[in-house]
Amino acid sequence: MIHRFKPKLYYHTYGPNEPAHHVKPGDTVVAPTVDAGGNDGEGNPIPDEMRQKAKGTSLSRSNPLTGPFYVEGAMPGDTLVVDVQSINLNRSWAYSSIIPGFGSLTEEVPGRSLLLNDPLPSKRYRWELDTKKGVGTVELPGSKVRKASIPLHPFIGSIGVAPRYGRVEMSLAPGEYGGNMDCVETCEGSTLHLPVFVEGGYLVFGDVHAAQGDGELCGVALETSAEITVKVDVLKGESIEWPRILDDEWIMTAGSGRPLMEAYKIAHVEMVRWLCGEYGFDRWDALQLLSQVGRCRVGNVVDPNYTVVAKYPKKYLPK
Amino acid sequence: MIHRFKPKLYYHTYGPNEPAHHVKPGDTVVAPTVDAGGNDGEGNPIPDEMRQKAKGTSLSRSNPLTGPFYVEGAMPGDTLVVDVQSINLNRSWAYSSIIPGFGSLTEEVPGRSLLLNDPLPSKRYRWELDTKKGVGTVELPGSKVRKASIPLHPFIGSIGVAPRYGRVEMSLAPGEYGGNMDCVETCEGSTLHLPVFVEGGYLVFGDVHAAQGDGELCGVALETSAEITVKVDVLKGESIEWPRILDDEWIMTAGSGRPLMEAYKIAHVEMVRWLCGEYGFDRWDALQLLSQVGRCRVGNVVDPNYTVVAKYPKKYLPK
Amino acid sequence: MIHRFKPKLYYHTYGPNEPAHHVKPGDTVVAPTVDAGGNDGEGNPIPDEMRQKAKGTSLSRSNPLTGPFYVEGAMPGDTLVVDVQSINLNRSWAYSSIIPGFGSLTEEVPGRSLLLNDPLPSKRYRWELDTKKGVGTVELPGSKVRKASIPLHPFIGSIGVAPRYGRVEMSLAPGEYGGNMDCVETCEGSTLHLPVFVEGGYLVFGDVHAAQGDGELCGVALETSAEITVKVDVLKGESIEWPRILDDEWIMTAGSGRPLMEAYKIAHVEMVRWLCGEYGFDRWDALQLLSQVGRCRVGNVVDPNYTVVAKYPKKYLPK
Amino acid sequence: MIHRFKPKLYYHTYGPNEPAHHVKPGDTVVAPTVDAGGNDGEGNPIPDEMRQKAKGTSLSRSNPLTGPFYVEGAMPGDTLVVDVQSINLNRSWAYSSIIPGFGSLTEEVPGRSLLLNDPLPSKRYRWELDTKKGVGTVELPGSKVRKASIPLHPFIGSIGVAPRYGRVEMSLAPGEYGGNMDCVETCEGSTLHLPVFVEGGYLVFGDVHAAQGDGELCGVALETSAEITVKVDVLKGESIEWPRILDDEWIMTAGSGRPLMEAYKIAHVEMVRWLCGEYGFDRWDALQLLSQVGRCRVGNVVDPNYTVVAKYPKKYLPK
Repeated sequence: MIHRFKPKLYYHTYGPNEPAHHVKPGDTVVAPTVDAGGNDGEGNPIPDEMRQKAKGTSLSRSNPLTGPFYVEGAMPGDTLVVDVQSINLNRSWAYSSIIPGFGSLTEEVPGRSLLLNDPLPSKRYRWELDTKKGVGTVELPGSKVRKASIPLHPFIGSIGVAPRYGRVEMSLAPGEYGGNMDCVETCEGSTLHLPVFVEGGYLVFGDVHAAQGDGELCGVALETSAEITVKVDVLKGESIEWPRILDDEWIMTAGSGRPLMEAYKIAHVEMVRWLCGEYGFDRWDALQLLSQVGRCRVGNVVDPNYTVVAKYPKKYLPK
Repeated sequence: MIHRFKPKLYYHTYGPNEPAHHVKPGDTVVAPTVDAGGNDGEGNPIPDEMRQKAKGTSLSRSNPLTGPFYVEGAMPGDTLVVDVQSINLNRSWAYSSIIPGFGSLTEEVPGRSLLLNDPLPSKRYRWELDTKKGVGTVELPGSKVRKASIPLHPFIGSIGVAPRYGRVEMSLAPGEYGGNMDCVETCEGSTLHLPVFVEGGYLVFGDVHAAQGDGELCGVALETSAEITVKVDVLKGESIEWPRILDDEWIMTAGSGRPLMEAYKIAHVEMVRWLCGEYGFDRWDALQLLSQVGRCRVGNVVDPNYTVVAKYPKKYLPK
Repeated sequence: MIHRFKPKLYYHTYGPNEPAHHVKPGDTVVAPTVDAGGNDGEGNPIPDEMRQKAKGTSLSRSNPLTGPFYVEGAMPGDTLVVDVQSINLNRSWAYSSIIPGFGSLTEEVPGRSLLLNDPLPSKRYRWELDTKKGVGTVELPGSKVRKASIPLHPFIGSIGVAPRYGRVEMSLAPGEYGGNMDCVETCEGSTLHLPVFVEGGYLVFGDVHAAQGDGELCGVALETSAEITVKVDVLKGESIEWPRILDDEWIMTAGSGRPLMEAYKIAHVEMVRWLCGEYGFDRWDALQLLSQVGRCRVGNVVDPNYTVVAKYPKKYLPK
Repeated sequence: MIHRFKPKLYYHTYGPNEPAHHVKPGDTVVAPTVDAGGNDGEGNPIPDEMRQKAKGTSLSRSNPLTGPFYVEGAMPGDTLVVDVQSINLNRSWAYSSIIPGFGSLTEEVPGRSLLLNDPLPSKRYRWELDTKKGVGTVELPGSKVRKASIPLHPFIGSIGVAPRYGRVEMSLAPGEYGGNMDCVETCEGSTLHLPVFVEGGYLVFGDVHAAQGDGELCGVALETSAEITVKVDVLKGESIEWPRILDDEWIMTAGSGRPLMEAYKIAHVEMVRWLCGEYGFDRWDALQLLSQVGRCRVGNVVDPNYTVVAKYPKKYLPK
């Protein structure tokens, strides 16, 4: 069954909020997302009454989320399977910016200063998107080239479920529930496995990026809106601790934490466990093989937790 | 001019040691390297009198280095250019191992314990190398698959110059002088730029890996021997702070430090500076573009400093 | 006015939960706390129906909190002042333990493993408390001394207000709202300043430690119960970002974060701001003076955030 | 025997440099030190020919060291004992400064920038020292108070031996050999235990601070000159891994590393080992006790490695 969903309320939290819609395992959801700043496919800001009330700073109002989708029969200890079937950019522009006190080359904590240096200037960039050609273009009046064009590779920046404890009150934060991992791997054609911590799972997504470099260095990617199609399923009785991602080429684990090395460790320990649990490797053999053929990619180094994705090539798995 | 060099002494330090050979800008050097444990192309350990005397633990005798090559005319403030023309594996096997108290999923400091947990077991893996097919194979008797094969992608684990201050007394350590960066990018076809801190530069290299995953997770790659061909040149009066690498597709900067985030920051700040200094970008525009098209790769998270390589695609540079 | 409060429900979250009691600025509260494991002054575990429902692992049920106290007239942007007038230990024993996968010499993340090493053994220690003499004694049958006695210095491990965003769903976590800072400075005779983020403040406290070393190394102090007396007041229109503590000798700021260096930086940047804002120092002069007479103390290196307290001696403040 | 030593050459490295003087176990050394910038007791800069040649930046010329003292009979595996009998400040002023790109609230790596923010301003402070009253006074023209006075507590910032491997080419760096730990505990009345890695030990010291806050926040303490008296001895066949310090009240271990948590871990793991090895504690009992009565102090968070001192009170040791 295909659900064409139109949000009435966008969320700023991961958690068991009032379900926006109920779906069954095997169902498909088609739904729009707004950009990290809350602008929709027309480029209009969503009105305040369409946002979950968020206390605190402007950062707590970043990344409005579509959902939550209550998945019938998803119980704690199950795994939620999310096939990302398509991400259709539905607008001709994206924005990015440089924000004082934000981003990995300034200070490491969103919204608080850890330095006595003066902060970076505030700057905003508008990227024109040619979604047919898959190209984004930006004006750079301060530079010798006056303009730059780069390829688009749209992906979902924030996708997650209700966490183990209550609510995560900031859609900007990634964790074991997924969330704002900002990893390029949650793209069209990928399948995401998320732990079900709470009955119904409470799937949400948003914050599509038209393009982003590894680590999301300055803290802001090509922020835009899209129409997302995902197919949802449940693996009964199969329990995982952290998000997993699969595509044609790789099995992947996503770890989020601070400092960066913690995210690296979580992802790799989880991958060793996956190799042992599902593919019959001895613990040390799994470590040895992963050490030689593993790849990893830094999702973000700017969010409240950093995200690292560990990758093991499918072709070196036992059949 | 082509120099066929045969080492009489392998070094365990980066620094202005007695030059093994003098070369001129434009010359080519062909020279063998031994593996990280000191075994040569025949599989024989090099005798003690062919090693620089190294005080301390067994780790200080890891990674014997070929050289140093004194480059005529290379002065402090110049840049040394090293074209890696070929890396010919000259042996049919490599080793890897799991070492108690070493590697990123146990304890983070080579040779010292930071934990009260009991250490990992000590294990050794022998990899058979089919260098024609480019395949490495290992026995895994403890696992359901009894054997695994993976592709080879040989690269130089350790390559560097004399550091800013005296000597680095452990060939295992990477830094602003290059060294044991363990990054897969220092491979055939790449060009390395290294800062000249000391007259003559004092180029050394060794520690070839037949393959390695991102981060060198367990601390030991497919350690083997090779014959290396490099062409050496000097950029007069062009000063850099950290190693740079170029290949057909990317310009790259390598940062080494601890914690991991420091290596990430060094590499990316250096890349922003490169983009501004050589390509006419404004500082904030460079940050913006790098944030959107940059890739990065984790070299190692096991050596005394960790290494991160920041990558910017050549095709999005101004002509 | 003095409120003798008897909890009906203990909380596992910081946030605007149903107020347990309303107080006015200037009022005094006398209330019991249970230990980190939920045992009361009689040594009996509180029944499940007296605990806020906490989802997730056993760690999310640690540190049950007394309160919340709604302070009339406390508005966002004000500062809540809490005089700790007394901490009366009301039981003759405390417990401590060594927990696999917990504590700073094993793995750094409560409830998740980042290592492949085997975990520490699980051990429990019972400390007899002589509250008159101020001495705690423990049996150590595995050691040459069979018994050890140490001095008691009771303090409140967890004390905080509702955070900036919604709820913190784990009473184990410290942050800008205070919380489980586990710093020895929140003791009898100290005055705590906490930012008011939410109308009413929502003060909670609990987790009294009869003694604890710097950093709470193994993750568990001398966990016990007490009767607490605090006087509550409000500084109208005086806004602070992080907890501050004052005693006869010091003004102090408490920063919580990860990695440890982040907590150190937060505390010290806050102290520089305090010195500039309230005492008329130039930014660089404040940095210079703090660099020469500052003391700092590590609260904990085991909780979800680490806590560092920066201290500036009152006697070197301008009158 | 008492050696009154007058340096002819000040060193910028820890290592087996040409011994300046030979001493025997039990001998006493009386020797001057210059300040971190190389100014002697008259306030005059030492001439260039009295400095070991140091390559590189100005930082590599910081902290000129007095020595090395070759201790007859000190063999690898022994422990060098250094009683700090007196530290006589011999000048009426000290300097401190704020240095762009240096210090813990700006950027974490001496001499290299990890940020895109503009650096701090460069400022110099002159402190007048009243050594009789033990008071230092500084002008603060930018602040409401125009002047501040603080107590002096002189200690040796840099004291160490030849390291395990060759030379440490920067006297600014602390490590397992001691070095620039900048911990206030190496003061008059303390006894330092240093591992002997190289025959003769090669003791050096310098960089006296008239006062310093925990962590040496801005990177520069009250830098001054002194006359030092130390008594040197050797514990034959007693091997230690990291520096230890003893005074009337505490046994202490000093760990140096990065990130800060690594220094904390080294110091505490070493203390657990000391408690087990010398005092007959079981490993877990030692961890338990240290967790309850341990104190720790942050030496520095600005040098190439950070230093943490773990402290265990003598009065809770078995007799």
